[in-house]
Amino acid sequence: MATDISILGLGLMGSALAGTLLKAGHRVTVWNRSAAKAEPLAAQGAAVAATAAEAVLASPLVIVCVLDYAATRQLLDGADLAGRTVLNLTNGRPAEARETAAWVTGLGGDYLDGGIMAVPQMIGAPGALILYSGSPAAFDRHEPALTALAEPRYLGEDPGLAPLYDLAMLTGMYGQFAGFLSAAALIASERRSVAEFTESLLVPWLHAMAAITPPMGTQIDAADHATDVANLEVNRVALANLETTFREQGVRPDLLLPLKAIVDRRVAGGHGAEDLSALVEELR
Amino acid sequence: MATDISILGLGLMGSALAGTLLKAGHRVTVWNRSAAKAEPLAAQGAAVAATAAEAVLASPLVIVCVLDYAATRQLLDGADLAGRTVLNLTNGRPAEARETAAWVTGLGGDYLDGGIMAVPQMIGAPGALILYSGSPAAFDRHEPALTALAEPRYLGEDPGLAPLYDLAMLTGMYGQFAGFLSAAALIASERRSVAEFTESLLVPWLHAMAAITPPMGTQIDAADHATDVANLEVNRVALANLETTFREQGVRPDLLLPLKAIVDRRVAGGHGAEDLSALVEELR
Repeated sequence: MATDISILGLGLMGSALAGTLLKAGHRVTVWNRSAAKAEPLAAQGAAVAATAAEAVLASPLVIVCVLDYAATRQLLDGADLAGRTVLNLTNGRPAEARETAAWVTGLGGDYLDGGIMAVPQMIGAPGALILYSGSPAAFDRHEPALTALAEPRYLGEDPGLAPLYDLAMLTGMYGQFAGFLSAAALIASERRSVAEFTESLLVPWLHAMAAITPPMGTQIDAADHATDVANLEVNRVALANLETTFREQGVRPDLLLPLKAIVDRRVAGGHGAEDLSALVEELR
Repeated sequence: MATDISILGLGLMGSALAGTLLKAGHRVTVWNRSAAKAEPLAAQGAAVAATAAEAVLASPLVIVCVLDYAATRQLLDGADLAGRTVLNLTNGRPAEARETAAWVTGLGGDYLDGGIMAVPQMIGAPGALILYSGSPAAFDRHEPALTALAEPRYLGEDPGLAPLYDLAMLTGMYGQFAGFLSAAALIASERRSVAEFTESLLVPWLHAMAAITPPMGTQIDAADHATDVANLEVNRVALANLETTFREQGVRPDLLLPLKAIVDRRVAGGHGAEDLSALVEELR
């Protein structure tokens, strides 16, 4: 069913969102601070609003995709939000999402926050995921239209949840990249092909090791860190061995050292028989 | 074809290797410092040697799987290695593998080093992988028998390569675990289910992000770090945002900080437009 949707902010991501909604047959109104970015979308059938406030008035669903939450607040300031749903797809933190939700709600609007787990080229294609949190009624109302953008995943009423899960997924990604970069430096230290190592050995291994993390998650939820496989003492020895190897190969072990430090600390605290999952207790 | 193989060291892994070779129909001679561990294998048909030297004499292929390389040297000391292949599956570093190879070769033996990418329960089952390096002639001669243990991957004549690749794979795994643990601590800070987050969101995301690493490997091999997707400046902003979120959620960002530090350093050095792959240059 075609619905009216406004998009504020036409960077690469905002433009991808607007273009995908137009292709899906929705009536799209767009606005951007510099009007030139609206032209390609106008050519595809979008209405172009002269001001942010006019774009807000045009549709019951108002999607904001700008630089940060301060910019979100600034461009919505003075617009009539009564009866509108503001879906904020701007990158930010849980605390900012909660503040912005309270502000929008105070002005009579419904608030949804979202975390886009995709690059602009993936919007509307299989594999793209958008996390949502905030008003359940607003999510139910707009879910059919939002499904055109990416697989939607609603996390709960607390508007901070979408950015929290978004940032937790980025955190996992950065850890994986840090491990890859350190491994690559080891392989490169012997002038061997990093691409071949990564493609044929590392990626299948990372897939196999990722499969171990959901059971570790269950242990973390239960705060039960018993193991009969590789305990922290075994990992302590392996990490010490790794650090020595890095130094012998002339590679900086920097990215691994804090993991080694918390393993050492946990073992020194008398927890050497626990699983790696126990390290979460050292991060609280 | 049944061949004669000796196994020195019957911990969990050595016992799994011996049991699998027996099941595959080979003539297996075993030895362990404490003889009791040989009994279950004797019941399955293994010959039990009274000394390590006797086990070495029994077979042309001698597999050693003990605590460390010092233990390997100690138990082979005085044995007649002429015409034997020593396959050392003990955990160690590239430098130790090269020293041990020179020592074995000096005594008239062939040397292979190996890195087992599996837990004992996986030996002989699909998914197990063993990395090999050292004498190419010895590998060719023994590969048919070794295939019973795990998929064999021969990396080259330098005996240090198997431990190098083994440790590089462990490094990638530790990075992935560090990312998972930090992400888990963020999710747990809002008392949400870590198991559900990991299973339904994090693991598919890690698989998708692992797929980006082989092209990054190609960039590292070519020392060409151009990008038109997310450059270091974009990642610098994301990591600063992450650190703030960790602190707001009462979670220690320790495991991410060295990655943030080298991104900051690389950007400060005027390389903000490069890809994340460029961080390898900061690790040399």
